Amino acid sequence: MTNPLDVRYLTGFVGDDSWALVSAASNRVTLISDFRFQEQIAREAPHAAVVIRKGPFSDVLVRIAHRSKIDRFAVQSASMTLAVRNALAAKLSARRLVPVDDGLLQQRAVKDPIEVRLIGRALQCQQEAYRRVLKELKPGQTERSVVARLEMHMRELGADGSSFPTIVAADANTSLPHALAGQTRIKKGGTILFDWGARCAGYCSDLTRVVAIGRMPSRVREIYRIVLDAQCAAIDAIGPGRAMCEVDAVARRWIDKAGYGDQFGHSLGHGIGLHVHEEPVVASRSDGELKPGHVVTVEPGIYLPGVAGVRIEDDVLVTPRGRRVLSDLPKDLESAIV
Amino acid sequence: MTNPLDVRYLTGFVGDDSWALVSAASNRVTLISDFRFQEQIAREAPHAAVVIRKGPFSDVLVRIAHRSKIDRFAVQSASMTLAVRNALAAKLSARRLVPVDDGLLQQRAVKDPIEVRLIGRALQCQQEAYRRVLKELKPGQTERSVVARLEMHMRELGADGSSFPTIVAADANTSLPHALAGQTRIKKGGTILFDWGARCAGYCSDLTRVVAIGRMPSRVREIYRIVLDAQCAAIDAIGPGRAMCEVDAVARRWIDKAGYGDQFGHSLGHGIGLHVHEEPVVASRSDGELKPGHVVTVEPGIYLPGVAGVRIEDDVLVTPRGRRVLSDLPKDLESAIV
Repeated sequence: MTNPLDVRYLTGFVGDDSWALVSAASNRVTLISDFRFQEQIAREAPHAAVVIRKGPFSDVLVRIAHRSKIDRFAVQSASMTLAVRNALAAKLSARRLVPVDDGLLQQRAVKDPIEVRLIGRALQCQQEAYRRVLKELKPGQTERSVVARLEMHMRELGADGSSFPTIVAADANTSLPHALAGQTRIKKGGTILFDWGARCAGYCSDLTRVVAIGRMPSRVREIYRIVLDAQCAAIDAIGPGRAMCEVDAVARRWIDKAGYGDQFGHSLGHGIGLHVHEEPVVASRSDGELKPGHVVTVEPGIYLPGVAGVRIEDDVLVTPRGRRVLSDLPKDLESAIV
Repeated sequence: MTNPLDVRYLTGFVGDDSWALVSAASNRVTLISDFRFQEQIAREAPHAAVVIRKGPFSDVLVRIAHRSKIDRFAVQSASMTLAVRNALAAKLSARRLVPVDDGLLQQRAVKDPIEVRLIGRALQCQQEAYRRVLKELKPGQTERSVVARLEMHMRELGADGSSFPTIVAADANTSLPHALAGQTRIKKGGTILFDWGARCAGYCSDLTRVVAIGRMPSRVREIYRIVLDAQCAAIDAIGPGRAMCEVDAVARRWIDKAGYGDQFGHSLGHGIGLHVHEEPVVASRSDGELKPGHVVTVEPGIYLPGVAGVRIEDDVLVTPRGRRVLSDLPKDLESAIV
């Protein structure tokens, strides 16, 4: 396993540059790492066997293959690069490397109660940090300085850090679905979009809210209402056995009907867990069904380039009988005027 | 080009999930991206041709190959995964995909004056943020809360963010070369290690300092002196045409001679630029030479598990006649008692 999040899921070790070798015969896990992580592995992954390499990974694999008579290695095609594979193939022969599709992605998509609790903890951090930032919000602050304070509060509240680069976008910047926080200043009557998340004990959360100081421009109010209705309808459509593309379609039909179909160009949501974007993907092209234990974002948006964008996002757990919205920041239009 | 930093280097576009196609015939650059980045690309990469894809990348490549009669695509083996390559090969045939080693890594390793200035700006941010944090430093603060403040100050001083996950480690945690900041509290007479960096306009800086509040344990003072001497000697050895392994050896011999050779298990340094770890690697195994325009870290360390670790790191530009140390935080033993 070359994907560091799978290595973590499997062993508890949270560093990187380390591979996990799982023996099909013995089910034993061996961590292949280097000097830098030796002490950390002893603390975090006491149950794994450990090989501290001095040379390249391929040398270790050749030695293990020989000693344990391993004929073939399944390798993770979604995280192994061509360069790594070619370096291995030079010593092991390509025939002995069998690319497999995704490793643990499907297992990781279904959360157990401890994982749900950790996502909940990340949500508490990010929500409380947001409340503090809203209290401090003043016209004249730059997007970047708001990001600085939001991230500081998340850390001080116990987060490992952000689960992805925090977006705080003002006015026309809100129409960039992946805006970077810059030196634009927030102003009274302007629109501010927050898309942020915390990571706690490795687990990620992810929310989006749009607010305005004092009053919200009428065009933004209009699309806010449409996006919110679309989001609530999609959340109501979530449940075990529901086709993912259908849940996406519920939000999409709503926005289409309001005449903004072309301004909602991304998919409805994605799983969250050790990674902030993981399985399942809730999109028009998805062909799977929701299962109990899936935790997904629901985040429709409408983007009017040069004017403004509105996206509203919550995190939802699929339960055996329906759904539970894990986030609880208010999102009605009144609460968006701060 | 599938490496987002190469795409940025080439076009100015700072988003991700986008590929750059460089035509060998016309030298023309085409960005292949999606809806989310359409407006951002228009702002950041106005000179690139753009294709907004709705389906997979492979569909776009098949279309372009057909239209422009392209027979073969060079692909970046260090950033393309087996999964992506297999998806492309299913539509384009494997023969038409030629893996190339590193793309722009060697070009990117040599910085032009504008890039050096941006690294300098990142250094100014991170150094000023550090000075502020040292002033605020109080026994009882947790490692994580110090990280929160350090990162907030870097942002408020104009950084895009950290160039890597900030390390603030107290006491025995300092012996983990890649420690994660946790809930350990800093205390009077204890050792605190900072390894942090800023990113400004995409460019990264990276420094390490070790301090103690009030007084430093004598064992730590001993290894501090050795590491500092080794670091200064290695910096003095830097210059154009110097073998990288030799510069590494200067520091290593010094630490060996003092009896701590086995406690310095990592390489001496690495290039910094758009990525915080890039070419060249200054290690005992490196076989290249330093060139004017290289900017490298020099960061020897001694780690005594369960006791303490000391690492001292500066960023150094190779000039046509020698070197220029770009960072200027004090590092003598007296300045390390705060």
